[in-house]
Amino acid sequence: MKDKTSLEPTGAHAFLFPMPTVLVGTEVEGKANYMTAAWCTPACAAPPMIAVAVNHIRHTALGIDENKAFSINVPSVRQVIETDYCGIASGAKVDKTKMFTSFYGTFKAPMARECPINIECSLHSSVDLGSHELYIGQVESVFVDKACSTEFGPDPVRIEPIIYLKSKYYHMGHFLADAFSEGKKHAEK
Amino acid sequence: MKDKTSLEPTGAHAFLFPMPTVLVGTEVEGKANYMTAAWCTPACAAPPMIAVAVNHIRHTALGIDENKAFSINVPSVRQVIETDYCGIASGAKVDKTKMFTSFYGTFKAPMARECPINIECSLHSSVDLGSHELYIGQVESVFVDKACSTEFGPDPVRIEPIIYLKSKYYHMGHFLADAFSEGKKHAEK
Repeated sequence: MKDKTSLEPTGAHAFLFPMPTVLVGTEVEGKANYMTAAWCTPACAAPPMIAVAVNHIRHTALGIDENKAFSINVPSVRQVIETDYCGIASGAKVDKTKMFTSFYGTFKAPMARECPINIECSLHSSVDLGSHELYIGQVESVFVDKACSTEFGPDPVRIEPIIYLKSKYYHMGHFLADAFSEGKKHAEK
Repeated sequence: MKDKTSLEPTGAHAFLFPMPTVLVGTEVEGKANYMTAAWCTPACAAPPMIAVAVNHIRHTALGIDENKAFSINVPSVRQVIETDYCGIASGAKVDKTKMFTSFYGTFKAPMARECPINIECSLHSSVDLGSHELYIGQVESVFVDKACSTEFGPDPVRIEPIIYLKSKYYHMGHFLADAFSEGKKHAEK
């Protein structure tokens, strides 16, 4: 097909557009640690689960293996400097306990108070895929900043989440269409 | 904490901000089928893998189980009507073979030519999590529209991917910061 270019699968992770930007919270050897991640997705509705891929060499992997728990924190564009720093500096070399104000739920998984959304997960299972371990966590509790909520729940406009794509961060853009609605125009064609 | 609201974990999947919008391509009983999905993430770098969560009741689950393969297609905002339609109409009731121009790689997993990015996956493994099966696919080939590429590879501005959040689609927004760079400002503080 002359309209398509075939690319090497080795870079395939850079082709899933777009990705979220989250902070994975763990406790490693008694210290709160936060790692920036973009490879994260809801994995199940009932029971609610989230999956996140972590490179085996990461300090974060030690924390999840040790405590069978982790948190997923959704930062705002307002925390982009701290968020990116957590992807540059390893907890093995730098003390990240002061990066955020940590709070805890039931499990040994620190949550970052400064992030608008905090999701506490207990480890359900994990799959060793090669360079990365895919950790699947059951959602145990969810916290949202009151200042980022409306009567309809967490508000994207007030949260201002960070989008990740090819080593760059982006803002969310404007409204495009309603899901489970826009497609009806196809049936009407 | 008076600044946080505790929410029921049952709705936890609506709190991972933001999510991508993709089309999962499968062949079910000899027919090409496409399902809209937002619960999708890279899962491993070496070898390259992608994970996608599919509800067991979905027609798409039949296709992956049957052929041990699926494709992930990244639509543009230009395909938002067709994309949303694939999340409304089930392949069990509606023939979706004409939704897109299907092409194939090595596996029985149709790819949608109209979508700027197409990723062919062979099934590596899957995990039954409850309502959803988390399918993990090894990336076998990647195709990108030449019109959506630059010398640096796939171009987010030309692709115009669709962001999904709480039953609404959004555009990508403007550039925020460079990853693995912006965080250095924290160390300089």
